Amino acid sequence: MSNYIGIDLGGTAVKLGIVNMKGEIVETVEVPTLAETNSADKIYRNISQAVGALLEKSGGDKIKGIGIGCPGSISPEEGTIVSGISNIPALNGFPLAREIEHDFKIPTFIDNDANNAARGEFLFGAGTGKKNFIMITLGTGIGGAIFINGDLYGGVNNYAGEVGHMIIIVNGLQCTCGSMGCWEAYGSATSMIKRAKALVERGIKTSLLKHYPDDINAKVIVKEAAAGDMAAKEIIISTGKYIGIGLANLINIFNPELCIVGGGVSLAGEILFKEILKYAQINTLPRAWDVVEIEQAKLGNKAGILGSAALAYMKMK
Amino acid sequence: MSNYIGIDLGGTAVKLGIVNMKGEIVETVEVPTLAETNSADKIYRNISQAVGALLEKSGGDKIKGIGIGCPGSISPEEGTIVSGISNIPALNGFPLAREIEHDFKIPTFIDNDANNAARGEFLFGAGTGKKNFIMITLGTGIGGAIFINGDLYGGVNNYAGEVGHMIIIVNGLQCTCGSMGCWEAYGSATSMIKRAKALVERGIKTSLLKHYPDDINAKVIVKEAAAGDMAAKEIIISTGKYIGIGLANLINIFNPELCIVGGGVSLAGEILFKEILKYAQINTLPRAWDVVEIEQAKLGNKAGILGSAALAYMKMK
Repeated sequence: MSNYIGIDLGGTAVKLGIVNMKGEIVETVEVPTLAETNSADKIYRNISQAVGALLEKSGGDKIKGIGIGCPGSISPEEGTIVSGISNIPALNGFPLAREIEHDFKIPTFIDNDANNAARGEFLFGAGTGKKNFIMITLGTGIGGAIFINGDLYGGVNNYAGEVGHMIIIVNGLQCTCGSMGCWEAYGSATSMIKRAKALVERGIKTSLLKHYPDDINAKVIVKEAAAGDMAAKEIIISTGKYIGIGLANLINIFNPELCIVGGGVSLAGEILFKEILKYAQINTLPRAWDVVEIEQAKLGNKAGILGSAALAYMKMK
Repeated sequence: MSNYIGIDLGGTAVKLGIVNMKGEIVETVEVPTLAETNSADKIYRNISQAVGALLEKSGGDKIKGIGIGCPGSISPEEGTIVSGISNIPALNGFPLAREIEHDFKIPTFIDNDANNAARGEFLFGAGTGKKNFIMITLGTGIGGAIFINGDLYGGVNNYAGEVGHMIIIVNGLQCTCGSMGCWEAYGSATSMIKRAKALVERGIKTSLLKHYPDDINAKVIVKEAAAGDMAAKEIIISTGKYIGIGLANLINIFNPELCIVGGGVSLAGEILFKEILKYAQINTLPRAWDVVEIEQAKLGNKAGILGSAALAYMKMK
């Protein structure tokens, strides 16, 4: 049985793992990304050495392919990080997969982390056995990935799934993309934190005050809501409502068998998930709702490595 | 070269045509639907006789397949009109395609008219040569169809593409589906007519008054706008804005190579189309906008017959 290497390339750390086809990570290596050096060459050599170290750990087991996942817009055909990888600007335009493949003579593939997360869930997680599903990743923004006929749908230039910029309130809140009223301006961790800070600043009585400003995050808001804080609860409920409505939009559009909800915000607990389900159901047409399952992602913090390995596996099979 | 029969089953008339592979309708038959008889049996016998009449007109040319298009939710596998065909209620659950196939010994297929319109554009119209595109149909509501990898994407139970019920304004206008703020509550002909009537009722000075109430329709609003009426112009501009924003959502989600805009409202003229394009561009991420074309549907009032024939062709090839 062949193994694959998955590389999770983040802004601060590069996490590498050898993955077997049971979805187990059997060896790992982790190195700092060195984004601050601002040198593609240094960053690349560091990653390359880490791959070498991992291959040594593999003890000669055959590695069939290498997959890389990173944030940003990727051109998989060219093995290039095209743009938008704002936390590692030196790698913009760098043909990372092609270089790794050249150095190690192992087929290497690259795609963005939201797409790979969906591939990981498809092979090893909540999506096993499903052919048509969507996955949303609730974090700083809202990412999306679309599976159709058992494969990731990338669109014309691998840019499909930008669900976070679906407008749910015309003339609504300003989004980072320049438009107004995007889904992620209402349903992301960033939006929760903004709302929490605004409540504190308006002098509303809330236990969030003691975390203000720098320690307010989605987890803290959920914790305070669970402890009975009304302002925190209100943030969770309205965030869940917005997430649920956007999810309903996607279910009405795709008529999928499954929606996987992943990302940090999705771990915020039962209160939020209950609200998401409630508003998704209210706003989905019954015939589509009747056939869809909504599940939380299963791979958790292994999604980066497993998803990247899944990319390599799916490209080579 | 084989020909196909396309059947456009509407609430008042059934239009049948023999279609060749150049996309020409070489023979036609039209009969009333007889929806008012409320008898599936009578309606079926009438359609069946019309098929017989058309086959006689074909003069013995081989008919390879028959396609049927109708509004509502269709289960193509069972050859059944499942539900939602509100203007011919007697046919709910009636296995129309199966019966035709049985009677004429010609393979027969059925799907909803929005899906078939997209198939027609794919084979004979604006979508030729395109593999990944979306089509929206602007009429009483907003219909949608999704083409992926050169085939219609139906979702789990052929219900995909319900783009009209994508919410673009949370807590917005009431939609016929029960939700609030759906796209079609802002971008359909129905919404234009509602707004026009409301303006007249509020006593706004407008030439729409002379059409009030029963002659106000999308075409009239466009005509009065073109003649300089400010209220009519304002309706067109805001409708175009809403349509454009919903279209941007779909382009961000699908990253398609083409969006085809069809339906009666799309024929409303250049003013509306200009607004649609303007707001679609403003709200689409640049990388997706750069690769997408927006085109008006080409099949016009032949879409029903040509689309249904396209269904049969695509199912049999």
